[in-house]
This record gives sequence, C-alpha cells and structure tokens, in this order.
Amino acid sequence: MANVPDIAGFRLKEDVLVPASHGRAFRASRGDRVQIVDIKGKQVGDLVAYCADDPTEYLSPAHTITQNWRVTLRAGDLIASNRRRKLLHILEDTVGYHDIVVPCCDPEAYITRYGLYDHRSCLVNLKEALASIGLGNWEVRGEDAWNMFMNNRIEADGTVIYLEPAHGPNSYITLEVLEDVVCALSACPQDQTPTNGGECTEMLVRIWKPST
Amino acid sequence: MANVPDIAGFRLKEDVLVPASHGRAFRASRGDRVQIVDIKGKQVGDLVAYCADDPTEYLSPAHTITQNWRVTLRAGDLIASNRRRKLLHILEDTVGYHDIVVPCCDPEAYITRYGLYDHRSCLVNLKEALASIGLGNWEVRGEDAWNMFMNNRIEADGTVIYLEPAHGPNSYITLEVLEDVVCALSACPQDQTPTNGGECTEMLVRIWKPST
Repeated sequence: MANVPDIAGFRLKEDVLVPASHGRAFRASRGDRVQIVDIKGKQVGDLVAYCADDPTEYLSPAHTITQNWRVTLRAGDLIASNRRRKLLHILEDTVGYHDIVVPCCDPEAYITRYGLYDHRSCLVNLKEALASIGLGNWEVRGEDAWNMFMNNRIEADGTVIYLEPAHGPNSYITLEVLEDVVCALSACPQDQTPTNGGECTEMLVRIWKPST
Repeated sequence: MANVPDIAGFRLKEDVLVPASHGRAFRASRGDRVQIVDIKGKQVGDLVAYCADDPTEYLSPAHTITQNWRVTLRAGDLIASNRRRKLLHILEDTVGYHDIVVPCCDPEAYITRYGLYDHRSCLVNLKEALASIGLGNWEVRGEDAWNMFMNNRIEADGTVIYLEPAHGPNSYITLEVLEDVVCALSACPQDQTPTNGGECTEMLVRIWKPST
C-alpha cells in the first residue's frame, strides 16, 4: 500500500482504491482525517462532497474561492459549501497545486474537442461512484468538482494554462473533515492532454478515525 | 431612457428596468440582441440564464472559463452552458471587467460577514425574479451567476482583489443570443464593500429583435 505516514492519534478505518480512470465513493464523519494519495504520481483526482444529511449542500469551488479570497489552495485553507459552511480543512499538501476554476471533464468535452464518443470522464465516474452506494439520484455537476493536483496556472491576463503535473509517487493531501460528508473521487481519465502526465493511474483514499 | 445607441438591423422589443437592489427576469430568443446597461455607473449586475426548454442546462461560469481558456471576459468571447453549448456571445463591452470565479452574494454572506440578517442579496433577487414569471421552482445557484461589471483582479499568487468599479453612466454590454433563454438580472445590493461604488443603483435590460 502507499507509503503514507501514520497520523498520530488516529487509526486507519478504511482504504478505498480508486482504479485508473474510474471513480469510487466514500463516507467520512466530522473529526475524521481523509488522505487522498496519488500512488504513481502526476495523476489528477476530481473530488465532490455532499453533506450526508442534505445533498443540496455540497462542496462548492466558487464559494471556496470566496472563503480563502484566492483561486489557489494550500495547507491551512478551508473548503466551503454552497451555503458558506466549512466542510473540509487542508492540513497537509505535498503537491501544492489544484484547480478550482474549471469544471471536471465530461462526455461533451471529449466529443466536442476530440470526437471521442465513448471516452470515460470524471463526471460519469463520479455519478457511477455515487450510484454504486445507492445515491444514483444525487445530482452531480461538473462545476462542483475540486480538480485536485491539477497543475494549472492563471496568467496575468487571465489565461488559464494547463501544465503537466510535477509531483511524484505517493504525493498526498490530508484533510480534516468538519462535517459528515459523502464524497466521490474520480481518477481523471484525461489522456488527450498532459493533465495526467500522459498515463492515467489509480489513486487511494485513506480514511482515519480518532483513536479514542 | 439610457443613452444606448440603436443596433442596425434590429428593433427594440422591450426595456426591462431592474430597480436598485432588486432583480427582474426576461426572455430572449436565438438571434436576439440583449444589452445590459448600467445607467448610473459603478453598478454590478448578476446574470443567470437557463435554456428555455430545459432549465437543467444553464449558463455556467466554470464552463465559460474552459470555453475561452480565460478567467476574464471580453468582446468576442462565448458564454457556455454546463453542457458546453454556446448560449451567448459578447459583441460589445464598454466596461471590460467581469467576475466569473466567485458566487453571487447571498443571505449567508451578509450574515456571516456583517451580522446582517435581513439584507437583500443577488441570490434572493434572482429567485424572486424567476418566481415573478412563474418559475419559482427553478433552482438558482449562486455559483452559476455571471457577476457582470464586477471589477475584480486575480494577483500572481491567486489572490482575488475586489476593486471599486471604474465605469461611468450608460456603460453597457451587448450580447448575441445563441439559444432561447430565460434570464434574470440582479442589480447587486452589496453596500458593505466598494463592489458597487458605495451606492446601489438600477440597471436596464434592452431586448432587440431582428428587424426582418
């Protein structure tokens, strides 16, 4: 398993392997720690999160920008819901770049840009993941995904430039969970651009509970 | 009425006055021109748009960023839906700045930042506007609003800075309508920051039909 250090005061409850180019759902409770691990490096993961008791409140990248007054994310930042509540808190981040301004990839993107009608996509991965735990009726919107470890840069004129990720194997982010959430993570299947370093690989979600 | 020039080949069909700190809804058809006019200057307008025959397809700022590969907007740019279709086309823009990265203001923002429990907000204005034409059941999300004429700037480190608008009276943007849409515009009621230049004022929507 991935070489991620233990977290003092917490015990590992569950490891969820997210296969390359697919998605998986998981639940986490207030007070838990969640680590998202890129096992092989240069892989982007797309995360959505919903309040467990009310999926009309969800992780919102736009509200997160206002929360931190920044379009970038770093350790210490808070991830906000569409009702301006704090859902997650970034404790550690060995990568240091993320995208919270563009939507996740979807079937329309592969069709319109590359003429690919059967390509996997983060949007469908996220829907499939939620459906696999009985939540297929929850609405998943591409603009509500946090494009984790996506190496974009916004130039002075506002242009968004996508760079190949620079992070290596076993890179990870550790999140403090501030509300009970249902999440889904897609290991991004984008293989038409440098987004995932030319190879789409699996990711790992580690869920830690307080020891006591 | 506002001193906006005629549009050759088009006839004015309707003027919709949006009172200060309130919202109004309007419909426009493919081929129409829509002008949003800031009558007194320094006023921000928050626009949402939905496909008239299917409100689950709507104007998406995040998809618009991907459409233009830019977090800024200027004449010539296309405004995209959450299904990556082109809904609007910017023909003219006498202002030159907009925000498409943060959500519109909502009751939670006024409560959490200023302790104001009864302040008007763009989110409620937009909902009220749609309800006034019988569409109160349509979902309005703050992250789907185009914050028109909002003078923000994104610094090199990703910090979002809000500046007082610099545009004067009768500033406007002209949009080519590419699909039949139902829209709502809120004249932003934010009076706690320099967002609207210290005074919240009315705006005007002008809808033009092809002459022939």
